Amino acid sequence: MHDVLENVPEKTIKCLDKGFVRIVDVLPRLVPEDQKTADYAVAEMARVSYASGTKSVNDDIGLIKYLLRHFHTSPFEGIVLKFHFKLPIFCARQIIRHRTSSVNEASGRYSILKDEFFFPEFVHQQSKTNKQGGDELVPKDVSEEFVESLEKLSNEAYATYEKFLEQGFSREQARMMLPINIYTEWYWQCNLHNLFHFLALRCDAHTQYETRVFADAILKLITPIVPVCVEAWNDYHPMRNALKLTRLEVEALQKSLSGLKAVSLESSNKREQAEWMEKAKRLGMICE
Amino acid sequence: MHDVLENVPEKTIKCLDKGFVRIVDVLPRLVPEDQKTADYAVAEMARVSYASGTKSVNDDIGLIKYLLRHFHTSPFEGIVLKFHFKLPIFCARQIIRHRTSSVNEASGRYSILKDEFFFPEFVHQQSKTNKQGGDELVPKDVSEEFVESLEKLSNEAYATYEKFLEQGFSREQARMMLPINIYTEWYWQCNLHNLFHFLALRCDAHTQYETRVFADAILKLITPIVPVCVEAWNDYHPMRNALKLTRLEVEALQKSLSGLKAVSLESSNKREQAEWMEKAKRLGMICE
Amino acid sequence: MHDVLENVPEKTIKCLDKGFVRIVDVLPRLVPEDQKTADYAVAEMARVSYASGTKSVNDDIGLIKYLLRHFHTSPFEGIVLKFHFKLPIFCARQIIRHRTSSVNEASGRYSILKDEFFFPEFVHQQSKTNKQGGDELVPKDVSEEFVESLEKLSNEAYATYEKFLEQGFSREQARMMLPINIYTEWYWQCNLHNLFHFLALRCDAHTQYETRVFADAILKLITPIVPVCVEAWNDYHPMRNALKLTRLEVEALQKSLSGLKAVSLESSNKREQAEWMEKAKRLGMICE
Amino acid sequence: MHDVLENVPEKTIKCLDKGFVRIVDVLPRLVPEDQKTADYAVAEMARVSYASGTKSVNDDIGLIKYLLRHFHTSPFEGIVLKFHFKLPIFCARQIIRHRTSSVNEASGRYSILKDEFFFPEFVHQQSKTNKQGGDELVPKDVSEEFVESLEKLSNEAYATYEKFLEQGFSREQARMMLPINIYTEWYWQCNLHNLFHFLALRCDAHTQYETRVFADAILKLITPIVPVCVEAWNDYHPMRNALKLTRLEVEALQKSLSGLKAVSLESSNKREQAEWMEKAKRLGMICE
Repeated sequence: MHDVLENVPEKTIKCLDKGFVRIVDVLPRLVPEDQKTADYAVAEMARVSYASGTKSVNDDIGLIKYLLRHFHTSPFEGIVLKFHFKLPIFCARQIIRHRTSSVNEASGRYSILKDEFFFPEFVHQQSKTNKQGGDELVPKDVSEEFVESLEKLSNEAYATYEKFLEQGFSREQARMMLPINIYTEWYWQCNLHNLFHFLALRCDAHTQYETRVFADAILKLITPIVPVCVEAWNDYHPMRNALKLTRLEVEALQKSLSGLKAVSLESSNKREQAEWMEKAKRLGMICE
Repeated sequence: MHDVLENVPEKTIKCLDKGFVRIVDVLPRLVPEDQKTADYAVAEMARVSYASGTKSVNDDIGLIKYLLRHFHTSPFEGIVLKFHFKLPIFCARQIIRHRTSSVNEASGRYSILKDEFFFPEFVHQQSKTNKQGGDELVPKDVSEEFVESLEKLSNEAYATYEKFLEQGFSREQARMMLPINIYTEWYWQCNLHNLFHFLALRCDAHTQYETRVFADAILKLITPIVPVCVEAWNDYHPMRNALKLTRLEVEALQKSLSGLKAVSLESSNKREQAEWMEKAKRLGMICE
Repeated sequence: MHDVLENVPEKTIKCLDKGFVRIVDVLPRLVPEDQKTADYAVAEMARVSYASGTKSVNDDIGLIKYLLRHFHTSPFEGIVLKFHFKLPIFCARQIIRHRTSSVNEASGRYSILKDEFFFPEFVHQQSKTNKQGGDELVPKDVSEEFVESLEKLSNEAYATYEKFLEQGFSREQARMMLPINIYTEWYWQCNLHNLFHFLALRCDAHTQYETRVFADAILKLITPIVPVCVEAWNDYHPMRNALKLTRLEVEALQKSLSGLKAVSLESSNKREQAEWMEKAKRLGMICE
Repeated sequence: MHDVLENVPEKTIKCLDKGFVRIVDVLPRLVPEDQKTADYAVAEMARVSYASGTKSVNDDIGLIKYLLRHFHTSPFEGIVLKFHFKLPIFCARQIIRHRTSSVNEASGRYSILKDEFFFPEFVHQQSKTNKQGGDELVPKDVSEEFVESLEKLSNEAYATYEKFLEQGFSREQARMMLPINIYTEWYWQCNLHNLFHFLALRCDAHTQYETRVFADAILKLITPIVPVCVEAWNDYHPMRNALKLTRLEVEALQKSLSGLKAVSLESSNKREQAEWMEKAKRLGMICE
């Protein structure tokens, strides 16, 4: 049996100034020697529903792609991934909203929080058009002023926190003066179906940079473990390299396209080719 | 306050030969008199996160469409719908796989099952190309033979079931001789976010006709209650009237399109227009 | 039809110095005139599984109690409650861990957070024996010093936040200097089964006082809406007025009790009486 | 590293006449050589929240017991177990109601169902007092008549199913004549927290015997993998060897006990001892 964690050259990826994501474990951990990746467990679970015949690695790839393209998502629940994070509270607050993960977080009621705060390297301007963050950086000198203020506030808050702890104040109340750039830690576990949903949203450019860094690290960690699943997800998810056209967009494109001949797909997969021909027809393109 | 259940002319829709779906209740049930539909509750939940300013019905429509187009799904969890079904067991077995609903089903351990079985009006041939069902009907005479056999087997099983119940055999064991075309009943409750996922899959042509009938009935029942949400879902979901192109399809289309000028959208919504221009550019179409 | 929200005299309960919980809506909202509470919807959902016969309000009470005593929890999912909270972030962080609720929270990326911070009236010492909080208050003078420090840190952080927002820094980054005693708002929705689990844990003395206040407010708001369910939950849940004995405790009690005669229950419910006699027998008490 | 699947002497347990449960995989699969069981992963996840100090196997046992006794359930989600079942449809219908598992079931739309039906060895009478099943067996001769009828109906249904398949009828419709004692297969995956909930209900005497057999097999399979967790669950769960007293029962017991001296626990765990003394005091027993 092959241990798929050996596929991951660096188990821990540093994130931001003091954080990290570490891959702790995966189900399946041990795979047949001729497989080398955990992808086969998706195919194995799917085969109980759909077919029993041939079972080569190549067949698995076709099957996995078909499943993901057609919303047969339950076999992807058969892969479970467990991570250890160190991350600022404001990132943890965003990530915890994904209710499909199992989490155990360090408790500021049980333990004394450590003197570790996030200070950004890149400081952004508020976007004029976008209610969320902004892409443009503030000039270097004001960015430094920002970080200095943040450091001053963090240090002052932590010193006061420490002082009251020493005086015997309860941890659960003393912590309330600490700012949300303080680091916390957690164990975080999720199946691959739900993880893909998380990654689609959190590796996206609309996610705050500081949170995206953690999602990107996860994606990097899992890619050598389930490379076929990741490739299929990249090709078929509209928030990755696929494209979703709304009804109105389909109609506009139909008008632009009328009479045009569809170029065929760069793929040897007959079913994918046929699916494209269907869509090209729907778009009003001439197909032979 | 307006009772949104009054928007539904017929609360019960007959399905198959002896089944039905009835809408029992909805959250929100009472809406402000100037609203008339439950859509506003989605906007109300979203506004706590995103904005607080203007709140006309028109703004709500724009906001709801924006939310659905961009995967901001949590506000749709704020609408909850409760239904009462009567349906054959083989349909119930398919529908129960959607784990996001709350269900209470009639129990064959507590009660004696009624002598009601489903007999199809339309009998299909097995598709040659598709491992699932088939679209082509079998000829009338063999279809009649099929239904007769089914009736005979059902009646015989039920008579034997009844006989053993009269002899004092346990209900839980006696029922095991009954075929899966027997009718059962349940209460089934789901929030709108999860219901849209269910409907996308189960109103689709790949779903077995007998199950699809129940999904179609639900869609008909909810449309007058949340008409804006349903319209947006129809326009933006790739299993409804939107279209998802895979990475390879995007690339093939890019080649077909190079140099073509994009027709603009039939929409007065500036944001939708801008989103389309982005996609047209990505497809290699000339945009001014 | 009767509107069950009318059972709640005050829809908003003030919590801590500036927070609140408000009940927004409930499923079912409208109940038959002869019912007055939402309890009947639990019985209605259960009846589809268990029985169909008599349906008086009294029967409902017995049925609801039976269901809760015997872990038949699905009918309680048929009641859904929606609340609006204003609460400090450190409380929100605790409550969000209950993954069974639907939440929409104010976003510090979209909106500017308001200058509202929690300052405690009661300040506790760290418990010597308990790793969590503490019950003993710190003396008045040091408690005042604590609150003054907290105010100073909060005001300074907010002034710096405001300054950087005015200079055009992104909201999503500027917020990271704010301490976790700042107030946030959310819509929070949960079904009654999951809400009882939440309340059992969060109305308990081991929960931090500041969070418990919100759980207590919810319990107060729902009691007139589902009084029978709440009473049954209070009587049967081991974190309320029931008592769970571990195996070793059962064995110790058996020894203490050998030969003692069990007093009968103060209840006219025969089934409860019989269940008690079973347990008394198991405890080694003489039962006639 | 030690492979915890090696702790399980027989990976497949036969259930009923033709069914089975097989353990497929577990997270964690590989554990440190000095551990031998997967229990440590619960402690590891808990430690991130609660403490960091000593970490001997003995400490783990105390911690695991504490967590389970006090409803700190999230660390148990860190253990995931995957099984392969072959079981009759009427059992599958019961088990699928537990919505916390991930399931892939053989599809009667894609594949032809096999000619395998469940025929009971033990046939029960309907209980007079209990609406569910019954404990008393029917006499041997009528039991044989029951099985013969079941065989006749099953064979006839299967022969008709086969005939229509050969005539090219769709599989999805032809299957509807098959009775619910036909066998199906599935992969079924669940975390330990949810699995304990499932086992508490389904290993209980109130569960239909045919379903209980599968739950009992799972319990047997997991015991050598997480022996400490299973022992704690047996000791602390009211549906196992613990005992839950309702408020009225507590009051009745208080009256029976007034003035009695509590025997101490057969346990060297001080915290458990102290918890018992608290409960004994609450019961009105004299404690020194």
